[in-house]
Amino acid sequence: MLTASQLTSLQAILPADRIHLDAETCERYGQDWTRYTTPRAAAIVFPMGIEEVQAVVRWANAQGVGIVPSGGRTGLSGGAVAAQGEVVVSLERMNRIDGFDPLARTVRCQAGVITAALQQFAADHGLYYPVDFASSGSSQIGGNIATNAGGIRVVRYGMTREWVAGLTAVSGSGEVLECNLGLAKNNAGYDFRHLFIGSEGTLGLVVEATMRLTDLPPATTVLLLALPRLADIMAVFHAFRSALTLQAFEFFSDLALTHVLAAQQATAPLAERQPFYVLLELETAVQSQEEAVLQVFSACLEQGWVCDGVIAQSQQQAKSLWRLREGISAAITPYTPYKNDISVVLSRLPQFVARLQGVLARDYPDFEVLWYGHIGDGNLHINVLKPASWALEDFRHACEQVNGQVFALVAEFAGSMSAEHGVGLLKRDYLGVTRSAEEIALMRGVKAVFDPNCIMNPGKLLA
Amino acid sequence: MLTASQLTSLQAILPADRIHLDAETCERYGQDWTRYTTPRAAAIVFPMGIEEVQAVVRWANAQGVGIVPSGGRTGLSGGAVAAQGEVVVSLERMNRIDGFDPLARTVRCQAGVITAALQQFAADHGLYYPVDFASSGSSQIGGNIATNAGGIRVVRYGMTREWVAGLTAVSGSGEVLECNLGLAKNNAGYDFRHLFIGSEGTLGLVVEATMRLTDLPPATTVLLLALPRLADIMAVFHAFRSALTLQAFEFFSDLALTHVLAAQQATAPLAERQPFYVLLELETAVQSQEEAVLQVFSACLEQGWVCDGVIAQSQQQAKSLWRLREGISAAITPYTPYKNDISVVLSRLPQFVARLQGVLARDYPDFEVLWYGHIGDGNLHINVLKPASWALEDFRHACEQVNGQVFALVAEFAGSMSAEHGVGLLKRDYLGVTRSAEEIALMRGVKAVFDPNCIMNPGKLLA
Repeated sequence: MLTASQLTSLQAILPADRIHLDAETCERYGQDWTRYTTPRAAAIVFPMGIEEVQAVVRWANAQGVGIVPSGGRTGLSGGAVAAQGEVVVSLERMNRIDGFDPLARTVRCQAGVITAALQQFAADHGLYYPVDFASSGSSQIGGNIATNAGGIRVVRYGMTREWVAGLTAVSGSGEVLECNLGLAKNNAGYDFRHLFIGSEGTLGLVVEATMRLTDLPPATTVLLLALPRLADIMAVFHAFRSALTLQAFEFFSDLALTHVLAAQQATAPLAERQPFYVLLELETAVQSQEEAVLQVFSACLEQGWVCDGVIAQSQQQAKSLWRLREGISAAITPYTPYKNDISVVLSRLPQFVARLQGVLARDYPDFEVLWYGHIGDGNLHINVLKPASWALEDFRHACEQVNGQVFALVAEFAGSMSAEHGVGLLKRDYLGVTRSAEEIALMRGVKAVFDPNCIMNPGKLLA
Repeated sequence: MLTASQLTSLQAILPADRIHLDAETCERYGQDWTRYTTPRAAAIVFPMGIEEVQAVVRWANAQGVGIVPSGGRTGLSGGAVAAQGEVVVSLERMNRIDGFDPLARTVRCQAGVITAALQQFAADHGLYYPVDFASSGSSQIGGNIATNAGGIRVVRYGMTREWVAGLTAVSGSGEVLECNLGLAKNNAGYDFRHLFIGSEGTLGLVVEATMRLTDLPPATTVLLLALPRLADIMAVFHAFRSALTLQAFEFFSDLALTHVLAAQQATAPLAERQPFYVLLELETAVQSQEEAVLQVFSACLEQGWVCDGVIAQSQQQAKSLWRLREGISAAITPYTPYKNDISVVLSRLPQFVARLQGVLARDYPDFEVLWYGHIGDGNLHINVLKPASWALEDFRHACEQVNGQVFALVAEFAGSMSAEHGVGLLKRDYLGVTRSAEEIALMRGVKAVFDPNCIMNPGKLLA
């Protein structure tokens, strides 16, 4: 899809081993985990340093070719898809970790460093990189930054945004920008670091970053609680959070449990089933905190908010409980789920869910809808499963109808149409749910400043 | 300085009590704590709501009049100065705190809420607003956000940036922007919240914000340590930080102590004087942590890093020790200090200070130079005192020469020319020390998107 002259000029600026044109590589690197779009990449390039990234960006500007920045391609919004003949710039060969600073507790990562490799590096130095999620074994730091990745520890440690002390980006016009220099304090003008974080590759490519590390977490206790009523979930949250430090506060519905138990061939963790479950991980560094766990658990039982629960008695049991939550996504993959990832302000969440349940039950009685998510952050993943008898196209069409109703409610509750997955291609046309027309116009203006020829991840985030 | 027609049109959009034209008000609201520039404001307006702010911004666009957003005017870089006939928009009458959400632990503040009022509000609800500094009794939340205020707890809690869940801004073109909606998680496009934070009123006015609160801090222990050599300060930092949680790690030189003792008519806290002092506040919630304080203190003495020290035995004594650090700025005000506020990466700080001390001693032997600051953040305040015999103009001229050498070194060490005070008017011409020409050009581009007619805080941050 590149012209002969475009290809010749690309080959003139990069060594031959950096450029792959074969169909298999183009297919593999042209898509992410969404599998919603047919990949159609013109070429995949694997630059080995900032200068090579810069050369590719300048080439793309000169040739008018679109670029798709590419990390671990674990995204769920189509942000890393190349479906229009773009050149994919994979940063996977730029995977060096160096420049560890034990005083500042920072470390320099090239964009292609795998999340788990940074976690391991931190552990090897007696420290902790706390951003964690199911894809940590293949997602990359550059992609995490470009999408401001969240995950299961946000309630305690925040999003990726909080852990970036500095980043180096190549802008859409090919300039190398050193954003924040890894400093703890720097009030010298607009913070372009935070503008690049979460910009989904539409302003430029994040090529390196200085990541913050922190203390190892203390000992923790893991609990699974069963709730008869969703309306009480925030009372449970408040009771535990007032007494203890939460490391995680996750949620799933009984239907989600059914699917994960079937997929894992596991037995139910509690004798009786209830409509909702909460998985908590609590910091219990000292005896008094362990006692507080029991006290709050008892109080929740007494109040009737919780009607059963289990406290993990071993690391092994804690892992088993976590597997129930973390296994949901894999368990439902065969059902071609249609995913939404929304958030509202915490106190409005139960009301939001109740309203949405009503709408879905009324208008889409044929669909299985699974609820789970990082409820301590106000973040819900709503997954609609495809009935076996439905054709994929019909199902997708119906889901777009569902979206209309989901997002109308998100707008009414002043929530986010994408809490952590980003906007990408799949959610692009719903951006107006959360951002005003004026803000979207300003976003276009900002993009034009960094990427005047619109070569960066064209069609993602902004139409 | 407004034409009759400009004034008439302003009076048409605001009630009469919102507009003040008298010389006293214009002088008072036309300057900040710097006192470096002669105030020359055309008018001071006191809007009572977002619509009134919006009306003023639209009026300013139509009339081509500059606007200076105004909070508590406690800034130290001239960011809130009106010296060119601008209209000052004081937000002090917009000082409502409401919308407390105990689940999300957030509260809605209008821009004019005094920092101490938010701290008190949090305390009244069993929570904590941790951003704190000497000016908390008069600085305002809007100004804190516009300048990303730091202070004495950054090593533990970060800058103001970390505590803003959402903000409402009126852009330079008069649009009301709802940035981040107070959500914990929101990956729906560019984060304009972070762009406004620290933008010093050059993109628009922050009119409201949703601020995060947190748990009350645990019991703490305050220590003052005396160090013979600056080179050892980071070893002391590392030793305490590895064993305990730091709430503060502050630093001052013996000359700073001399001035503060004289101003406060206090006696020295330690029997012998040493060149450098470190003030620590450590979390000591449990007995084992109190023991750890003693152990690390002993270890520092054994290593020779520290040669004397005192551990506060009461709240009263802790306050006295803190007064030594917090009183420095007031103590030297009579000496018309020339202030710099720089930061470098923590591990390079001792080398930076040693180099800079050498330069200053060689080239400016007549000047008293005080060193103090938030050294746990890599942030130093370098204050040059005016010798009594020097004329103010000559001193300022000489200090600008000093700046050349200070900033050359900051650039060499890849540090920030403004760690927490911001750029404003006074540091504007040094922005290139920390930001590249390409970045400054991009900053101009971004400003043009939000403030196309350049009415917002003209001449601040960007020339």
